[in-house]
Amino acid sequence: MTSDRHAAVPAFRHKHLLGIEGLAPSDILDLLDKAEEEVLVSRQVEKKKNVLRGRTQINLFFEASTRTQSSFEIAGKRLGADVMNMSVASSSVKKGETLIDTAQTLNAMRPDILVVRHHAAGAVHLLARKVSCSVINAGDGAHEHPTQALLDALTIRRHKGDIRGLVVAICGDVLHSRVARSNILLLNALGAEVRVVGPSTLMPKGIDRLGVTVHKTMREGLRDADIVMMLRLQRERMNGSFVPSVREYFRYWGLDQEKLGYAKPDALVMHPGPMNRGVEIDPEVADGPQSLIAEQVEMGVAVRMAVLEALAEHLPNA
Amino acid sequence: MTSDRHAAVPAFRHKHLLGIEGLAPSDILDLLDKAEEEVLVSRQVEKKKNVLRGRTQINLFFEASTRTQSSFEIAGKRLGADVMNMSVASSSVKKGETLIDTAQTLNAMRPDILVVRHHAAGAVHLLARKVSCSVINAGDGAHEHPTQALLDALTIRRHKGDIRGLVVAICGDVLHSRVARSNILLLNALGAEVRVVGPSTLMPKGIDRLGVTVHKTMREGLRDADIVMMLRLQRERMNGSFVPSVREYFRYWGLDQEKLGYAKPDALVMHPGPMNRGVEIDPEVADGPQSLIAEQVEMGVAVRMAVLEALAEHLPNA
Amino acid sequence: MTSDRHAAVPAFRHKHLLGIEGLAPSDILDLLDKAEEEVLVSRQVEKKKNVLRGRTQINLFFEASTRTQSSFEIAGKRLGADVMNMSVASSSVKKGETLIDTAQTLNAMRPDILVVRHHAAGAVHLLARKVSCSVINAGDGAHEHPTQALLDALTIRRHKGDIRGLVVAICGDVLHSRVARSNILLLNALGAEVRVVGPSTLMPKGIDRLGVTVHKTMREGLRDADIVMMLRLQRERMNGSFVPSVREYFRYWGLDQEKLGYAKPDALVMHPGPMNRGVEIDPEVADGPQSLIAEQVEMGVAVRMAVLEALAEHLPNA
Repeated sequence: MTSDRHAAVPAFRHKHLLGIEGLAPSDILDLLDKAEEEVLVSRQVEKKKNVLRGRTQINLFFEASTRTQSSFEIAGKRLGADVMNMSVASSSVKKGETLIDTAQTLNAMRPDILVVRHHAAGAVHLLARKVSCSVINAGDGAHEHPTQALLDALTIRRHKGDIRGLVVAICGDVLHSRVARSNILLLNALGAEVRVVGPSTLMPKGIDRLGVTVHKTMREGLRDADIVMMLRLQRERMNGSFVPSVREYFRYWGLDQEKLGYAKPDALVMHPGPMNRGVEIDPEVADGPQSLIAEQVEMGVAVRMAVLEALAEHLPNA
Repeated sequence: MTSDRHAAVPAFRHKHLLGIEGLAPSDILDLLDKAEEEVLVSRQVEKKKNVLRGRTQINLFFEASTRTQSSFEIAGKRLGADVMNMSVASSSVKKGETLIDTAQTLNAMRPDILVVRHHAAGAVHLLARKVSCSVINAGDGAHEHPTQALLDALTIRRHKGDIRGLVVAICGDVLHSRVARSNILLLNALGAEVRVVGPSTLMPKGIDRLGVTVHKTMREGLRDADIVMMLRLQRERMNGSFVPSVREYFRYWGLDQEKLGYAKPDALVMHPGPMNRGVEIDPEVADGPQSLIAEQVEMGVAVRMAVLEALAEHLPNA
Repeated sequence: MTSDRHAAVPAFRHKHLLGIEGLAPSDILDLLDKAEEEVLVSRQVEKKKNVLRGRTQINLFFEASTRTQSSFEIAGKRLGADVMNMSVASSSVKKGETLIDTAQTLNAMRPDILVVRHHAAGAVHLLARKVSCSVINAGDGAHEHPTQALLDALTIRRHKGDIRGLVVAICGDVLHSRVARSNILLLNALGAEVRVVGPSTLMPKGIDRLGVTVHKTMREGLRDADIVMMLRLQRERMNGSFVPSVREYFRYWGLDQEKLGYAKPDALVMHPGPMNRGVEIDPEVADGPQSLIAEQVEMGVAVRMAVLEALAEHLPNA
């Protein structure tokens, strides 16, 4: 069971991956190093590694997701795990079963790993305390989305060599974004200079306490940036509150070629997807030479393979 | 193909598992014995047995289900089968294709086993007559749910040693419950004393002909019981008919610590799930030391593995 | 990786299978020959061939489908591939992501093969130009459904020996049918005489330019036919346009024993499913001795295995 692993690499210290919060820089770097190996697996014709053979991975998604659930499913299968998807639409949640009952029911089927997405911040942490298997947070409300931050870091590192000292501008709807939060925590831990840029109505109060500078114009926020990370405008989460007009939003906050010009000439553009083309990003930029958007998706599978494998090492007798 | 099995155990006599009705006590005991072996498989790090490698299992669910479908899916995958899920939502049933056409279409793809849940009593038996593969009834209307009864028996036997002579009180909405019906048949076959307890409006006419005694109060029905098996109040099936108020229902029929006190001091509490907490069961009891609810779920996977393996033995050249 | 294949068979020339259009007769015959081998695989107890081990197949369905998606899923799994299903209901398409973004996202996860169904004619071709993996068209609007035509040809060939010279009558709602279009192209390529039969309101303009004769009555169209291929009446696609009454339709165009009598005595009956019994076909005929409908479904799995394996041969280092 250990033949595919380097004996020298120490086992991952954590049972769960609930957030970037709580990870040491060395934990993050170990995961990124392992992910580099996984990139090679997915680039082979036979994309298969049997380290999770006989392990059971359950993807428990209370919110629909194309890319995250697919990415975890492919990651688990490439490692040889038995992967089962459970989405809200076909679940007993409709019959009034609580989150915890659902989790404990699945836990009793003796999975090794539960990958959970939930619309409420903190739900995944709560769940992790009630089950005996490992839990991966695949996004909880506006709280954390740690594998997204890890895949973003991996993508950046492959292009810029080191994250320390880079200027990263995270732009747009920071208020509703777990991606922003996890990225801020990770990038700060690895020594980047992180800025957040967006309208004040979409900027969480006290965000500066996370160790970022807040910028009110793209011109100011993107100045000399190495990385421009756009966020999805999450209109579906804006019930009752301020909903910007798409046209106005694009004019002030949408990344087009002109605004990208404020950043360094070799600045790279990222987006966690799915994109609202013409809202937060101009298609010309999204598909342009500075865009890393497709590579982020590829790194997503590699990072999830790395996390699954790291947590499996933590399991008894593994 | 037979290396994982004890040569001495005779092959299962049946092609299908459509209900507890029709099984001899020895059939039931053989399945429970086999399930004990499967429990050990699921408790290993590498939860994998290759006896169904290359076999195709299709889960055809005309009613949504978290736990039953998941349990069959995990069971099949742990045995090495190729498992495919087909749920009504994404099926041609919407286009007006009949149940039988759907079944015959899937049968023509040469699956080995079809696991079927349907909202109409008898639908699974009808279907089994129209296909060439093995069929497992995963619940048909208010008729039978044989793997639930088997997993309940396995759970009881692991705690009480023998089912013969035990007093089992099945409580609540007996009228709408396939779980009750299958359990009555199985527990009677193995020599338990079975009681049903619940409001007369939720008690099927002629239930006493199944060899149970009918009790009109929890106090009377639970007296000296070894096992208190609560049923889900199936309000979703009560269209037009008597629907009890949740508050009243809990007062008279909900299992709380006080009512549990009527049973033997070492009585054990069961529930097939999903639970309506505060309706048919008090959370304190559901999560208390006498509850076997999580263990039932674990035994569910083991029993389904045993059934799948038993039916596979029946298949040609297996 | 090549041990299961005959060294003498040349690799498939095409990267994608987007339609019958563009295939040479020799391409078609190679696929049918390969499919004959796959039929044997699915008739074994251990229905498994490991030629696609470690390959990733994604079924991307923008329209629901029982039989086509299941058939591709089972085909991929029997070849050992990791298969992932992605249906519209649970996808980001709802969040406004474009078809192309969805495809490129999935492509970045490095699948080997994308199986795509879409409601718009041409969508699958468009998609194939935007991804690096192989693409199989599993039905695009009223355009093409090449694996259906291949499975129909395989079924016919197994009964009639050769397709050249056979008289094939394709009957009913030709207007909305991708099945008809792909079958016409394939059957013509292999030298059959193809007729289309149906009401003028359901007959596409200029259909005769595809090399078929158009017939306005079943009596005329079925005269001396070897194969009577019924089409599903696609009322769900008839928004706003002429919708025939079911009763009238059956009277004139529904295949019953009497109309089947116009064809040759040993004529065979086909239907791509799902059937509208009593609309385009009489249940007595559908279930009668001349019907090949169940066998078509079985051949569907075999043909899809053949196509998947053929495209895999085209992949680098395969």
